Amino acid sequence: MMLNDLCLDTSVVILGSGGVATSLARALDDTVGYSVRQIFSPHLAHAEALAGKLAVAEAIDRVEDMIPDADIVIISVTDDAVAQLVASLIPRPDTLWLHTSGSLPASILATLGPRYGVLYPLQTFSRSREVRMARVPIFIEASTDEAMVTLRRLADNLSDTVHEADSERRRRLHVAAVFACNFANHLWAIADELLTADGLSFDVLVPLLKETLEKAADDNPSDGQTGPARRGDRSVMEAHQAMLSPANAEIYRLLSQSIISRYDSL
Amino acid sequence: MMLNDLCLDTSVVILGSGGVATSLARALDDTVGYSVRQIFSPHLAHAEALAGKLAVAEAIDRVEDMIPDADIVIISVTDDAVAQLVASLIPRPDTLWLHTSGSLPASILATLGPRYGVLYPLQTFSRSREVRMARVPIFIEASTDEAMVTLRRLADNLSDTVHEADSERRRRLHVAAVFACNFANHLWAIADELLTADGLSFDVLVPLLKETLEKAADDNPSDGQTGPARRGDRSVMEAHQAMLSPANAEIYRLLSQSIISRYDSL
Repeated sequence: MMLNDLCLDTSVVILGSGGVATSLARALDDTVGYSVRQIFSPHLAHAEALAGKLAVAEAIDRVEDMIPDADIVIISVTDDAVAQLVASLIPRPDTLWLHTSGSLPASILATLGPRYGVLYPLQTFSRSREVRMARVPIFIEASTDEAMVTLRRLADNLSDTVHEADSERRRRLHVAAVFACNFANHLWAIADELLTADGLSFDVLVPLLKETLEKAADDNPSDGQTGPARRGDRSVMEAHQAMLSPANAEIYRLLSQSIISRYDSL
Repeated sequence: MMLNDLCLDTSVVILGSGGVATSLARALDDTVGYSVRQIFSPHLAHAEALAGKLAVAEAIDRVEDMIPDADIVIISVTDDAVAQLVASLIPRPDTLWLHTSGSLPASILATLGPRYGVLYPLQTFSRSREVRMARVPIFIEASTDEAMVTLRRLADNLSDTVHEADSERRRRLHVAAVFACNFANHLWAIADELLTADGLSFDVLVPLLKETLEKAADDNPSDGQTGPARRGDRSVMEAHQAMLSPANAEIYRLLSQSIISRYDSL
């Protein structure tokens, strides 16, 4: 009698079918030693769409249908939905329970058993865009040293860059990401609006932005800082502010002031 | 008797040896029909370093040594240095005189002859990083329709993306680039500082930023806006501001307010 390969694999159930769930499920499905057994979504069609892309996964829309012996359960739903989903699950002491949120504490899973933690991939995901998980930095936290061993092995199999980060560190990381990602994207939206008003499009800035990001990544952002505020060019800064709406002029003024202070450029 | 190939080519002299001059010289050197004949720099070693990478260019450090019959002269020095360099040149009516600045008016070249204009590549250049000029949007302006024909042919040979832009339009473009590039880079510098204080580095954000930029380029930045301000998540925004220095908290507050206003997310 031979053992079925599936019996030797670490069995994984994924609760969720959004961007993070999709990327994790597909990456795990390609990883030797792991087997994604079930995808749960309250919308069966969503669960089926993702399960259909995987080797052996079953789609379910009721948590009661979860296999009882999963080694790892990954909860990957919106932050707001985690608590309610957790309340509907049956606690199991041998399962490693994980969520994938940068904002929620690990302890939100404590009612499910002694082995729980966080696997937080620092990336923006969507169902329609494939992301190479190996390049995504993953931040992990576990309830016990023993749970950390299982979690660390999982994370190392998924990504080349794994850091431990408790709730406090994830919070600080999140603030940094808000500046670097959310706020930068908003400045791009303002630029897009200015260009569109002029019959141009954001496209003309993309090569410049890609090169600026490459430079920032190769060296660091401070070394690559350029522009009127960095040069302390008052006349250009004043002319620019006069061309802007009051709200955008205020952003221009404050960020220029921040640059001037940092580099002592006036 | 055969004409020398060089005699059939459009002859180009480049005044300057910095990042823009280097990228333009190398791109023109690879373009059939153009011949870069001289590189000028007040530092002969700089001129020689660039000329040495080109097919037939001579390095000069005195503008008096310029060939008198150049079809095109490209002035690619820092904005501050253009006026003084222009004053030292001998006017020639048949030469097309160009500068490469986004900020200076074309008319700064008007004393040199009737044919002048601007060839402004919207990119950040440095001597040490090769940039594929074909991908760089170029903005052009010429003093006459006839000069525009010569300039348009030159620009179309260099780049896949060429737009006409007078001084006013270049100024508006520059404001957009300050938001999208200079200010975004400064936000990355702030994020870098926050991460470094936490024993991490800017590297952990780079995959997220690359993906965010790809999304903004494929769709547009507004569609991809995420984060606490976009969701109107007051408690997270307040917690974040409490973790920041007063100066950074003020940037956080103003940019969040701008996002909330734009998307009406509170």
